[in-house]
Amino acid sequence: MNELDLIKNYFAPLSTGETGAFGLTDDAAVLAVPEGMELVVTKDAISEGVHFIGNEPPALIARKLLRTNLSDLAAMGARPYGYFLALMLPEKTDEAWIKVFAEGLRSDQEIFGITLMGGDTTRTRGTLSLSLTALGLVPRGQALRRAGARIGDGIYVSGTIGDAALGLQVARCKLQVSKEADAHLLERYRVPSPRVELGQKLRGVATASIDVSDGLMQDLGHIAECSGIGAVVIWEDIPLSDAAKSALPLVARPHETIAAGGDDYELLFTAPRTMHEKLCSLAKDAGVNITRIGEIKPGDSVKLVDKTGREIYLERVGYNHFSSKR
Amino acid sequence: MNELDLIKNYFAPLSTGETGAFGLTDDAAVLAVPEGMELVVTKDAISEGVHFIGNEPPALIARKLLRTNLSDLAAMGARPYGYFLALMLPEKTDEAWIKVFAEGLRSDQEIFGITLMGGDTTRTRGTLSLSLTALGLVPRGQALRRAGARIGDGIYVSGTIGDAALGLQVARCKLQVSKEADAHLLERYRVPSPRVELGQKLRGVATASIDVSDGLMQDLGHIAECSGIGAVVIWEDIPLSDAAKSALPLVARPHETIAAGGDDYELLFTAPRTMHEKLCSLAKDAGVNITRIGEIKPGDSVKLVDKTGREIYLERVGYNHFSSKR
Repeated sequence: MNELDLIKNYFAPLSTGETGAFGLTDDAAVLAVPEGMELVVTKDAISEGVHFIGNEPPALIARKLLRTNLSDLAAMGARPYGYFLALMLPEKTDEAWIKVFAEGLRSDQEIFGITLMGGDTTRTRGTLSLSLTALGLVPRGQALRRAGARIGDGIYVSGTIGDAALGLQVARCKLQVSKEADAHLLERYRVPSPRVELGQKLRGVATASIDVSDGLMQDLGHIAECSGIGAVVIWEDIPLSDAAKSALPLVARPHETIAAGGDDYELLFTAPRTMHEKLCSLAKDAGVNITRIGEIKPGDSVKLVDKTGREIYLERVGYNHFSSKR
Repeated sequence: MNELDLIKNYFAPLSTGETGAFGLTDDAAVLAVPEGMELVVTKDAISEGVHFIGNEPPALIARKLLRTNLSDLAAMGARPYGYFLALMLPEKTDEAWIKVFAEGLRSDQEIFGITLMGGDTTRTRGTLSLSLTALGLVPRGQALRRAGARIGDGIYVSGTIGDAALGLQVARCKLQVSKEADAHLLERYRVPSPRVELGQKLRGVATASIDVSDGLMQDLGHIAECSGIGAVVIWEDIPLSDAAKSALPLVARPHETIAAGGDDYELLFTAPRTMHEKLCSLAKDAGVNITRIGEIKPGDSVKLVDKTGREIYLERVGYNHFSSKR
């Protein structure tokens, strides 16, 4: 298995939709950014033993890496355009692994209308590591930002929160609920659903936006810090899947698991009260539920409270250790 | 040492020239591509034990990674714009290492007028791995390509060839010439000089272009394959530094070392005979020597010959194993 054959057999076919990728035969790709648009660029790196166990089906590793980057684009309100991929492969990685990895990319390229545009394939003496750079387009000046939330704005999330953190416990055999619930939670952990349609619809409506990757309360903290405001989230208003509801009584630290578990890849955003009806309608068009879970407040503290207003203290607010993305 | 502090202390200051990087606090960067320009994107990955030994000064690792990517941009005729960096750091990497690594980036940012725009910092359980995505700008439709060389075109290289391959032998204590020569060769191996000015001046003049990374003859083979032509290079015309000239009698396989050694990061390009004077003038303006080393021929073979026309057979044409870039 040599590098040029790998590229020719498995990766060049993923680039055929994009003329500027030159079938991955040139030194770089050339992209035309349409007039009036800006380019949104995000880059993530993942490594075996830190971000994935290593025995996952390779198609799932591929899809999760692609989808977490698409989630970053969604948080900025961008439409996915293309991506670049670096693979650092240990000796043990065989061609069969790469074939299935590339098939995972292909299936998600079709779902999200995105194309491979270039990258690098190399050996490593360490563990399998991957880096993906995703490019998106947004009308000039309309990118959603973490800064912009205003006092009185509602705080919203898409989908349900906490499934992935519970799914990780299922994957690690630390949690068993029911066959159906376990499958749902595991799927939510392994294959996130980046809210790319909703993200684009939020342009001009949301005042601030981020995707929930480090944990709900920590990511809300990022919005608060960048916007220079505080926030309160009501525990009972956080949307949970049926599977998460049935799992919660079995979990040692339910509040931490849900509100600080991370890996949700749902959108967390703020918008003025007057936009509530419009938001619900946009979300419906995008085919995803949104839920109002709190409100932007004066000050700089980010609090989780129960419906009586009593604060719930979390032992940790998010995925704080040296691991996640910028 | 936590991730957010690392970014704040060492990487955010490298992004201050670029408003769309948002001080590395957002999910992604936003770039405005000027009207009439296209974006050129290249991505490389390097890993300890494969692309570098690991005991190099971290500033040199940083600079080489940045410069090899700038060399890809130069080969396409693009002006450097910005870059994204993913660091996958093993536990042993301490803050002092990162500080010096970031200083290396800073010094090259000043030299090449380029700014950090985003990226990812993460732990790995494997070896130190890095991935860099570099962005450049080129007037629409004017990017230089590997395809385009025509029969009768002259074949040119910038600078001198073979220094880096000899420098690697010095680094591995397999070659010792003289204090002065060793220092020159080692420096050429450790800190390549991407020909970003020359590359931009070659737009509209060169018919095909690539940077020499895998080895002179192999990279010429890429031009030949993409252009559908053959090529002949004259051994005695390949430009050598004084250090390389004095090292060559000490080397087991001089032809392979020079013409297949790789890591030169010089530009290899083709142009019609009528452009020779213009090329020399452009190169002078860019402050770099260029040398005509051969000619594009009919057919599909890429040959190295001596000045009498006798073919020199290489045991290997380049850095062919599973390692280098796409």
